Amino acid sequence: MERYRNSDDRRAIFFFDIDDYKFFEKHLSLAGDKSRALQRQYRLQHGLIASGLQREKHISPLIFNDEVDNALPLQGLLKPDRELRRLLEDIDRSKIKLWLFTNSYVTHALRVVTLLGIRDLFEGITYCDYAAQSLICKPNTAMFTKAMVEAGANIDTPCFFIDHAALRQSVIPALIASIAGVARTLQESHHVSQVGTANAFGDDQLNVDVHAENIIRTAMANCPAIVAASSEEDPVEAQTEHGKTPTSSSEKYTIAFDPLDGSSIIAPNWTVGTIIGIWEGETALGRDPASKQIAAILGVYGPRVSAIVAIRIPRGNSAIFEVGIAPDLPLTVFTVRPEVKLLPPPHKTRYFAPANLRAAADDERYMSLVTHYIKEKYTLRYSGGLVPDVVHMLVKGHGVYVSPVVGGKGAKLRRLYELCPVALIIECAGGRAVDPVDGRDILSRPVENEDERGGLLCGNGEDVAFAIQSLIG
Amino acid sequence: MERYRNSDDRRAIFFFDIDDYKFFEKHLSLAGDKSRALQRQYRLQHGLIASGLQREKHISPLIFNDEVDNALPLQGLLKPDRELRRLLEDIDRSKIKLWLFTNSYVTHALRVVTLLGIRDLFEGITYCDYAAQSLICKPNTAMFTKAMVEAGANIDTPCFFIDHAALRQSVIPALIASIAGVARTLQESHHVSQVGTANAFGDDQLNVDVHAENIIRTAMANCPAIVAASSEEDPVEAQTEHGKTPTSSSEKYTIAFDPLDGSSIIAPNWTVGTIIGIWEGETALGRDPASKQIAAILGVYGPRVSAIVAIRIPRGNSAIFEVGIAPDLPLTVFTVRPEVKLLPPPHKTRYFAPANLRAAADDERYMSLVTHYIKEKYTLRYSGGLVPDVVHMLVKGHGVYVSPVVGGKGAKLRRLYELCPVALIIECAGGRAVDPVDGRDILSRPVENEDERGGLLCGNGEDVAFAIQSLIG
Repeated sequence: MERYRNSDDRRAIFFFDIDDYKFFEKHLSLAGDKSRALQRQYRLQHGLIASGLQREKHISPLIFNDEVDNALPLQGLLKPDRELRRLLEDIDRSKIKLWLFTNSYVTHALRVVTLLGIRDLFEGITYCDYAAQSLICKPNTAMFTKAMVEAGANIDTPCFFIDHAALRQSVIPALIASIAGVARTLQESHHVSQVGTANAFGDDQLNVDVHAENIIRTAMANCPAIVAASSEEDPVEAQTEHGKTPTSSSEKYTIAFDPLDGSSIIAPNWTVGTIIGIWEGETALGRDPASKQIAAILGVYGPRVSAIVAIRIPRGNSAIFEVGIAPDLPLTVFTVRPEVKLLPPPHKTRYFAPANLRAAADDERYMSLVTHYIKEKYTLRYSGGLVPDVVHMLVKGHGVYVSPVVGGKGAKLRRLYELCPVALIIECAGGRAVDPVDGRDILSRPVENEDERGGLLCGNGEDVAFAIQSLIG
Repeated sequence: MERYRNSDDRRAIFFFDIDDYKFFEKHLSLAGDKSRALQRQYRLQHGLIASGLQREKHISPLIFNDEVDNALPLQGLLKPDRELRRLLEDIDRSKIKLWLFTNSYVTHALRVVTLLGIRDLFEGITYCDYAAQSLICKPNTAMFTKAMVEAGANIDTPCFFIDHAALRQSVIPALIASIAGVARTLQESHHVSQVGTANAFGDDQLNVDVHAENIIRTAMANCPAIVAASSEEDPVEAQTEHGKTPTSSSEKYTIAFDPLDGSSIIAPNWTVGTIIGIWEGETALGRDPASKQIAAILGVYGPRVSAIVAIRIPRGNSAIFEVGIAPDLPLTVFTVRPEVKLLPPPHKTRYFAPANLRAAADDERYMSLVTHYIKEKYTLRYSGGLVPDVVHMLVKGHGVYVSPVVGGKGAKLRRLYELCPVALIIECAGGRAVDPVDGRDILSRPVENEDERGGLLCGNGEDVAFAIQSLIG
């Protein structure tokens, strides 16, 4: 294992963060009380480093390394992990470079990967240099830059930091499992209420929204990293039980979700969806959505059950992919499309989805925008469900969704539960999502309270730009 | 059991046809070879009566009754049927009058229902009077009129003739089961081809259309009454294997179906459907659709699996209902809505679905019709799938679907596989379905060949009338 730089190397780089709480929990969890004590110690130590070892100048980091890291009796606890090794071997290393990344000192880190029997699979390591005058460590941006430079990344090398383990291994999987649960409930809910018609079934009505809410809340309860949540059904952000136990997880996330979007089209059995935003930290309110909402999920309930997952962690590359879900137990989840992308022009077929079209009766600009789409032979697809309408453009590679605000009316989409998650999805797919009132990015403005609402203009960049020009230019 | 007339009786009347081949097959099928011989004899006899006993004047019908019907050793074969009795007892006889209906003579018919232990549940019987000078029997319309008069029907009494047993007990159940099969296939088909985009998956594409076709064809193969079929995937009407064996069923049906409608919205996981038309006789071509297409089914694949079934047998009342399907085996099917109806005005919300909207760019009339809907604040719902778009109006109680033909273009819906079945569904629900070119009912003109196409204007009567006026008035 040597450090090297090779500017001709076009491979992507995966940075494996071995400080990962979950990573170690997995490897240490079999050894009982002693292991749990070690985990606490380990978390404590790295929590200290991360949160301000530099400020505690009277503690020498190298002493820490000797007294804590090197003193951990890992050889008795860590054994070669064949499963992990197979997983890493399955990665095509002609396309992806594997690189270790840690806040610990080099001696400790190499001891860990040697004991796990995976040391030879990595091409290098970036560690926290405890001997340096000025300590650089995560989550300082400089530490990520250091890792990329040391790993030989060029300016355009895709770099993936395999951290946020609880997000990837607990939060997102649990939420996808809950989508399967909602799907099963929907499949069985034939006597749904017929919103807005005289056809309701009285006592026989099932409130599937509430069922979906409960299923997702139950799934979240199994994730120690989820510390706060609110939803369209229960729109007051509150700490979860885990949130009330501050030491339960080294990662902390807040969930904002719409359990079942598209209530008006549930009765006619049209495709509906779940919208979930995942925020880093203990609240979603008053934070910068562009950097703090780090993941979003759209659950899609149609002839199939699927989900689109977007992850965009600051300093890392973004990822957006579609998974298929076979909702029957035991649950099966598999990648359907490893990358979801809105396509650049030219488009064989262009699609438009004009929401709140009644507003065009009172707004010449909206009416003429719609007329423009018709004259330009855009294809109309408008289900009235935000999830299917957005997923349509993501699958077709083109689309423009217009939900304008006219005369102060039409701002019906909730920013926290609908607009922010959808905007992250669209941006990760290469599109734009803006406020139709001022043309600013949806994610440029914090959500100050759960009830904030707005319109939406989203889709392929050139079409969003044209629509902004038409509506407010 | 007495005959009576009571003009204050507002109950519906169910006529149970005890000559039913399937009915007797069920009760005689347990008794081996002797029973099979009896079945043949029984079918032969009633086939003779139905097809022209009157023309064979030298055979006295009463001799037939004595020598055949009364001679059948039924007492050894027919036993009290508790299941059938429970079924009949479950019918709310404060709302529905049960009436026996037969082409046999009264003595034979009463012997049968007495042996089955259900005689007391019927309020009367209409039989073929073998002693009469002029023999009146099914399928002569006079026989049905006679039954309704004898059962005390008023001009507005709903009358249901429980005949067409193979249709009700074999054909429709088999087709609904095939819808469950298509649903299961769709649930598992995550790697579907992305029609019209660059996102296709090459060799990994699944042609779900072909799967659906095969599933439905396999289901039909189990129905001796289905003698011919064609489909949007295999659009040449041809005899089935059963059709090549003329004696296999006393009822004969031709199926015309679109196995999976809405191919463009399968990839984005929107609700799609199956469309099935059931025609009486050995062909669907060149026949009067209004009287010969006696049933239609829309299979709906969304978050749930459901089907809308319409049955309209000449001389009988029409029925249209929605069933829910739990597609996992063992299959469960249950009634969700016993009656599907478009509602009369006033409507709280009015919906419009403008298909082929690009045509409005070249057609002022269509553009101004769309503008009318916008100005009148109709709600837009347009999925681009004929089944979900039609089901939407049936569930909401209101809707108008407009797929015009402009400058000879836009006639893209197949008359045999899409327009005729949908028109029957819409008419049974109390709406209208017309050709947008001339405003005539879709079902008023025979389908001369499998490839005939047209536009469609359907929905609530008053909205269809307005659209006709706008487009061609």
